[in-house]
Amino acid sequence: RSQQANSPARVSSLLLGRTFSTESNPIRATLFPGDGIGPEIAESVKQVFRAADVPIEWEEHYVGKEIDPRTQSFLTWESLESVRRNKVGLKGPMATPIGKGHRSLNLTLRKELNLYANVRPCYSLPGYKTRYDDVDLVTIRENTEGEYSGLEHQVVRGVVESLKIITRQASLRVAEYAFHYAMAHGRERVSAIHKANIMQKTDGLFLKCCREVAEKYPEITYEEVVIDNCCMMLVKNPALFDVLVMPNLYGDIISDLCAGLIGGLGLTPSCNIGEGGIALAEAVHGSAPDIAGKNMANPTALLLSSVTMLRHLELHDKADRIQEAILKTIAEGKYRTGDLGGTSTTTEFTKAICDKL
Amino acid sequence: RSQQANSPARVSSLLLGRTFSTESNPIRATLFPGDGIGPEIAESVKQVFRAADVPIEWEEHYVGKEIDPRTQSFLTWESLESVRRNKVGLKGPMATPIGKGHRSLNLTLRKELNLYANVRPCYSLPGYKTRYDDVDLVTIRENTEGEYSGLEHQVVRGVVESLKIITRQASLRVAEYAFHYAMAHGRERVSAIHKANIMQKTDGLFLKCCREVAEKYPEITYEEVVIDNCCMMLVKNPALFDVLVMPNLYGDIISDLCAGLIGGLGLTPSCNIGEGGIALAEAVHGSAPDIAGKNMANPTALLLSSVTMLRHLELHDKADRIQEAILKTIAEGKYRTGDLGGTSTTTEFTKAICDKL
Ligand SMILES: CC(C)[C@H](C(=O)O)[C@@H](O)C(=O)O
Ligand SMILES: CC(C)[C@H](C(=O)O)[C@@H](O)C(=O)O
Repeated sequence: RSQQANSPARVSSLLLGRTFSTESNPIRATLFPGDGIGPEIAESVKQVFRAADVPIEWEEHYVGKEIDPRTQSFLTWESLESVRRNKVGLKGPMATPIGKGHRSLNLTLRKELNLYANVRPCYSLPGYKTRYDDVDLVTIRENTEGEYSGLEHQVVRGVVESLKIITRQASLRVAEYAFHYAMAHGRERVSAIHKANIMQKTDGLFLKCCREVAEKYPEITYEEVVIDNCCMMLVKNPALFDVLVMPNLYGDIISDLCAGLIGGLGLTPSCNIGEGGIALAEAVHGSAPDIAGKNMANPTALLLSSVTMLRHLELHDKADRIQEAILKTIAEGKYRTGDLGGTSTTTEFTKAICDKL
Repeated sequence: RSQQANSPARVSSLLLGRTFSTESNPIRATLFPGDGIGPEIAESVKQVFRAADVPIEWEEHYVGKEIDPRTQSFLTWESLESVRRNKVGLKGPMATPIGKGHRSLNLTLRKELNLYANVRPCYSLPGYKTRYDDVDLVTIRENTEGEYSGLEHQVVRGVVESLKIITRQASLRVAEYAFHYAMAHGRERVSAIHKANIMQKTDGLFLKCCREVAEKYPEITYEEVVIDNCCMMLVKNPALFDVLVMPNLYGDIISDLCAGLIGGLGLTPSCNIGEGGIALAEAVHGSAPDIAGKNMANPTALLLSSVTMLRHLELHDKADRIQEAILKTIAEGKYRTGDLGGTSTTTEFTKAICDKL
């Protein structure tokens, strides 16, 4: 399996359930550059797409910490409608609006667009050394419920509780996606991560749904791993894992842990899958206001995320070429941004990628 | 800080809140050898204690998966009373009794003895190579509430919920212990791990309690780290952390992750602190029925746990000597059990330690 790692084919058809047509040319895709370094790294994607002649026309909308002066809201109807219409989009980092009562924009987008699965392919980047060189796994996180229900209250003074909600519908949906994904990518194993020895009803239901779906995929090995043990195994030997599927909070924790294994959120692509075939790719790192506007940001996470978007559109040739150019540029090491120990600007790094195209 | 790592002094006075006297000689301590490999590794502790002339008299009780024929229960009153009276004990791995409706014995002991904090010093073992050589941290886990409430129910068909409970009392208690511990060990920083951006009320209360306690310890740096980010930082650079304190489930996850960094549960000591100064040290690995009785088990986790027990008794000289003998034996590498890549039996490894004493 590890020999196939990092080959573009491994991440092909990342996104299932497409319902749109790619026959119209150019294809329209939504772009939310976001806040902080967002506009710079989005510019990098645009340049790379131009250099590779990708037939995409961006429909750009601002979503971020600034209030829309017309509607006094953070998220306009047009922005959401754009993703719903195009079914495909790319999003940069968004800062949380300042002031009381604003939930994170990421959470709002997940809710409004019903983005039920967060998918993160996570593989060691050739030539970029970390303590691990054998990571090649995909985390698939349930993205709508669990510990993120928002249901909390004080029982009596000094005693508070929050509700974790697991539903059969959302569990089946994400499990179905995980097995679909495994099949489409020649992956061999799906591990369901849980703590059903403690949360027998909630995580128990999640596992039950995974088992039901697993029965329909006899080609895929199915296993169940308790989350504490999973984290220990991941840091000892990540090569033990292939596709991991799990409830929301475990997914939050484990996807970041895995990103850490290969160098951090600045290097990991991410894509959110929504009902009706929506795919919103995103860089999951922060907006890094401290270096915003300084031409210092590393656009890799957003670039690799944009590649997952191209695969969703079945533009595999373009996706392969771009992914190769990104990985080669990083591997050669001549042009790297500061976070990877280099001295290149965002523009220089982007140009190095474009030159390979 | 890292120069001090692994020196016995770093784990001295692990256990605060003692209320017993060590003047009676010998001191009585409870021993639960447990199931599977438990009796063999407990034997190893007994031999090492004899070789080091430790003035302890063991009060041995069986607690494990076998039913007590007299009482038809898994946990006898005598066993619990023994820990309550001696205030100090050592426990091997226990398998969960077979049959419906038996909760884990570990959970039962935590509840019955009100073991409110689980403490795990986690440091790279000199000479035993993993991907990390700079780990030197302590995880302190709230051990009684949170996601372990056991409160779950089905709301309607296909919708289940479980309750996470956080109380001011338990949060203050574990925070208090964490800061006490940091002071007593010359540690400089306490990090509270949370997900209060999502669970604002429950994790919010936990943080509020940590902050209140932190104010009483101006010598200790206090910080708050979101759990996903914490896991990423731990795998990238564990040297960033010193003492970590957190709610139950995060502690379960992070303490195992940290154990993974240094080689696994077979090498990490653990101690449970209960109300009234009780300390029950334990090996947290499983009972490994596959190798039970074969003289193959690695007693290191139980041995290092027994050292924390000696420190609780303020038998620091004995603790230092034994800890040094264990670490040296592993570092030299001549006698290692199979799990560490060696070929020694439990007896040979134990003898090598005793020979150094
Ligand atoms: C910012 C936060 C609410 C969010 C989450 O917890 O889901 C983030 O950690 C993520 O993974 O996208
Ligand atoms: C066996 C299980 C119930 C237990 C827990 O979750 O606390 C274990 O993982 C531990 O850490 O002691």
